[in-house]
Amino acid sequence: MRVTPLLRQNSPSISAALRERVRRPALLRKIAHPSDLAPLFKNDDYIGWSGFTGVGYPKNVPTAIADHVESNNLQADPVTKKKFNLFVGASVGPEIEDRWARLDMIARRYPHQVGKEVSKGINAGRIEFADKHLSMFPQDLTYGYYNLRKKHGDPKKPLDWAIVEATAITEEGHIVPGASVGATPEILQSAEKIIIEVNTLIPNLEGLHDINQSFLPPHRLPYFIRHPQDRIGQTAIPIDTDRVAAIIESRKPDNTGSNAPENDESRAIASHLIEFLSEEVTAGRIPKSLLPLQSGIGNVANSIIGGLADGPFEQVQVWTEVLQDTFIRFFDSGKLSFATATSVKFSPEGFVKFYSDWANYKDRLMLRSQQVANSPEIIRRLGIIAMNTPLEVDIYAHANSTNALGSRMLNGIGGSADFLRNAKLSIMHTPSSRPSKTDPTGISCIVPFASHIDQTEHDLDIIVTEQGLADLRGLSPRERAPLIIEKCAHPDYKDLLREYYDRALHECLARGAGHEPHMLKNAFKFHTNFQEHGTMKIKGWD
Amino acid sequence: MRVTPLLRQNSPSISAALRERVRRPALLRKIAHPSDLAPLFKNDDYIGWSGFTGVGYPKNVPTAIADHVESNNLQADPVTKKKFNLFVGASVGPEIEDRWARLDMIARRYPHQVGKEVSKGINAGRIEFADKHLSMFPQDLTYGYYNLRKKHGDPKKPLDWAIVEATAITEEGHIVPGASVGATPEILQSAEKIIIEVNTLIPNLEGLHDINQSFLPPHRLPYFIRHPQDRIGQTAIPIDTDRVAAIIESRKPDNTGSNAPENDESRAIASHLIEFLSEEVTAGRIPKSLLPLQSGIGNVANSIIGGLADGPFEQVQVWTEVLQDTFIRFFDSGKLSFATATSVKFSPEGFVKFYSDWANYKDRLMLRSQQVANSPEIIRRLGIIAMNTPLEVDIYAHANSTNALGSRMLNGIGGSADFLRNAKLSIMHTPSSRPSKTDPTGISCIVPFASHIDQTEHDLDIIVTEQGLADLRGLSPRERAPLIIEKCAHPDYKDLLREYYDRALHECLARGAGHEPHMLKNAFKFHTNFQEHGTMKIKGWD
Repeated sequence: MRVTPLLRQNSPSISAALRERVRRPALLRKIAHPSDLAPLFKNDDYIGWSGFTGVGYPKNVPTAIADHVESNNLQADPVTKKKFNLFVGASVGPEIEDRWARLDMIARRYPHQVGKEVSKGINAGRIEFADKHLSMFPQDLTYGYYNLRKKHGDPKKPLDWAIVEATAITEEGHIVPGASVGATPEILQSAEKIIIEVNTLIPNLEGLHDINQSFLPPHRLPYFIRHPQDRIGQTAIPIDTDRVAAIIESRKPDNTGSNAPENDESRAIASHLIEFLSEEVTAGRIPKSLLPLQSGIGNVANSIIGGLADGPFEQVQVWTEVLQDTFIRFFDSGKLSFATATSVKFSPEGFVKFYSDWANYKDRLMLRSQQVANSPEIIRRLGIIAMNTPLEVDIYAHANSTNALGSRMLNGIGGSADFLRNAKLSIMHTPSSRPSKTDPTGISCIVPFASHIDQTEHDLDIIVTEQGLADLRGLSPRERAPLIIEKCAHPDYKDLLREYYDRALHECLARGAGHEPHMLKNAFKFHTNFQEHGTMKIKGWD
Repeated sequence: MRVTPLLRQNSPSISAALRERVRRPALLRKIAHPSDLAPLFKNDDYIGWSGFTGVGYPKNVPTAIADHVESNNLQADPVTKKKFNLFVGASVGPEIEDRWARLDMIARRYPHQVGKEVSKGINAGRIEFADKHLSMFPQDLTYGYYNLRKKHGDPKKPLDWAIVEATAITEEGHIVPGASVGATPEILQSAEKIIIEVNTLIPNLEGLHDINQSFLPPHRLPYFIRHPQDRIGQTAIPIDTDRVAAIIESRKPDNTGSNAPENDESRAIASHLIEFLSEEVTAGRIPKSLLPLQSGIGNVANSIIGGLADGPFEQVQVWTEVLQDTFIRFFDSGKLSFATATSVKFSPEGFVKFYSDWANYKDRLMLRSQQVANSPEIIRRLGIIAMNTPLEVDIYAHANSTNALGSRMLNGIGGSADFLRNAKLSIMHTPSSRPSKTDPTGISCIVPFASHIDQTEHDLDIIVTEQGLADLRGLSPRERAPLIIEKCAHPDYKDLLREYYDRALHECLARGAGHEPHMLKNAFKFHTNFQEHGTMKIKGWD
């Protein structure tokens, strides 16, 4: 298929910066105004965007589409209303997708999101959302699993549109992404028409990325990666340039916020963890330089990485999903030898430092697609040490990563289960309690039965809170529960949890069903009490 | 370490059959009587056995240990009592491990078991049990995760003893297993002392196995497997022959039972599934020869494989954990081109046919270690079609594979999650209901909230019962629930489930928490009603 270039007669002028970045001159003939493109998007279109953790997403065309909808008051009328099916590796900047959600322009949004308005729409029933392991989303897209019920367009192309940000286009027409790769290769491969926003505000990041070709079964090959720095692909994403419908010049930065600040709690958790890792090194179960680290997003992750920058381990390697600001400090400490991820989510100040000192970092960093960064194959092969935060963990080590009180979606499972299932050391860290509106410790993060389960007891090795660390390796459920309660629960909940376990054990053993003792009638009593009284502090188990 | 041969002065005579099978003469000097070995096993010893799904396990030494314990009445006295920590790839014959359980000789049993007495001991609190993904158990053993709290012996050797069955020993002293590989390579690698039971009753199965070397991170390599028939290792398991403490001749067969018979229900499920696979082929999402199949154990699996033997697909390949009798028919139909697994669990009659027609099957079959057979890396690369049976599935597609009513362990998670997480098509099949003592449909296999979760909503694509098939790919939780209820639930439960969902939806949307609607106070009402009244048919949701 050859896509007719859009609006050639009305082309904007081409800046010198853009001319330098777009090294395939034929594509410059496709330059267009976002506002001219906006009306081309039809109700029920399937659209893929680049972007991961709010980095490397298209900023201009999505904004123009929202402007078009808003200024023409399209959503007021069922006939003119436009709602789209939106597929992005993970999240994009809130100024874009939260605005789309507020304007009720999103019919469906897969597989991860961050933004108050988006989650409001999901939980209010306006947006269909399914979270999916981030390693699987791109393959399920190319398998055709997301367009099974799509009524229009080419069935071989799951998406009508791909809108992606680039920092350069090569002579071959290949796309050099921004500071994330995510699902962009598969989104480009899956789309009928491609719009490229070339961002000339940020540097050309050519050389930062490792883009491998993604095959479908039965034609897949092993990922020939044995170390985080191994390169298995090219530096840009090959595309069918005939499908390029338009090129846009962008001068908008990634709208990242500040990283979550550390606090006493996060530092206490990090300290328990670093002590644990030191003991593992002493016992000879991991090397002195550790094994490649994965760490999630948030203040605990920041404290851990900060702690490692001051810590006893040298020549550390990182294989992770996202890098935050503290990694700059970790690099600068000289203790981090190499890091690979699918996205760099620095704060605005972090990006300024990173881009200005680019030469210093570029040889110690590589970005890959999320299908590779989160691949079970590589995570298991490298023996990664994975660290992530749940909403809650239960006394047998099942964890809820996604749904508050079992039903209200926060962001989605992301890559947590890709890493926790396959890591050599699977660690979940959480404060032992969180405040509710009326009680500073109204929510216990250790519960009898997790109200939603994303990570199972078969996947977790270590639970750590500011109270302490529970090493669950090799333990049975009846050994795990007392240990998790003792080491990890907040003192306000220890007695309640012990009593739950003791009673459940007594009841279940009595009927010959005591492998993983529960009182099903009371299993969610913490949660229902919270729904009714604003705290998990129940009066008792009767 | 050099292990002193045991009881050389009292050696039994060496049969011609044994002399032929043991091609390293020095090892024949280590021949011993099982009854002489039995007293050497000390209380709290860590013991690994070969064996998987009741095939290829040691029969003589474990029996002799049980005889020793029983005839000397050791368990009657806390001072003489012997309880062991027992590690086996999966299950062994019930005449062995059920007897150990009945004699209260098992302190700890990982990671999977089958046998009434063993599960009774687990659920009564006498046996500590933790089930683990079967791909992970061998690596966790070699990581040292199961001997973290072991007080005696060499800390580098997690096990005091390995007792394994062989069908031959090569000139190099390498071990040719029986009809399963399981975790035997890692158990041998992890043990201080090795006892080998050479089974001369069954044929020398040399050539059937593919034994690759298992490395620890950071030294792991990719598994260079692109097709089920790819060979990456040797035909026998290398060991340190200095660790061999004794050789035993065995003439006992694997004590397998009959395969579960098909019935109308299992045939209905198989028929829905084969129709679905045909549609996938027509849609071009899988090749005409399908993709490699994994199927579990049980009558539904038998009906599916039987259906495929009569079905429209040619040149089918199988990558699975266990082969059952129906695979013989599948081979004989000419439609199965190659099968690989970690175990062959045929009925006694099946084994007779298999061994007598060995030349006909041997080039179309390969057995691998469970670390490879169940490897996420290969399952994902090959794009396997995985089919397994749960105890129950909930309306959002979380499945319980292990614990009845949340607490009573049946067998363990086995390899179900290895396959279901990583397959291209992840299918769970179950009857829509099961009988309770008082009600022929007293147990609904579709429930509001699974009482234990082993497979999450992020892992399952297809749920199928005799009622019908729900294709969940690309659907949000609010789309999944009505579809699962409509297509899969038993008619006796459809209205109750619909009402649960409708009420939960209404309540959750009202408070802006409607992503995955639940009424937590009622989530286990099916289960608690069953506990109290012997049926899940509740009066209503109030």
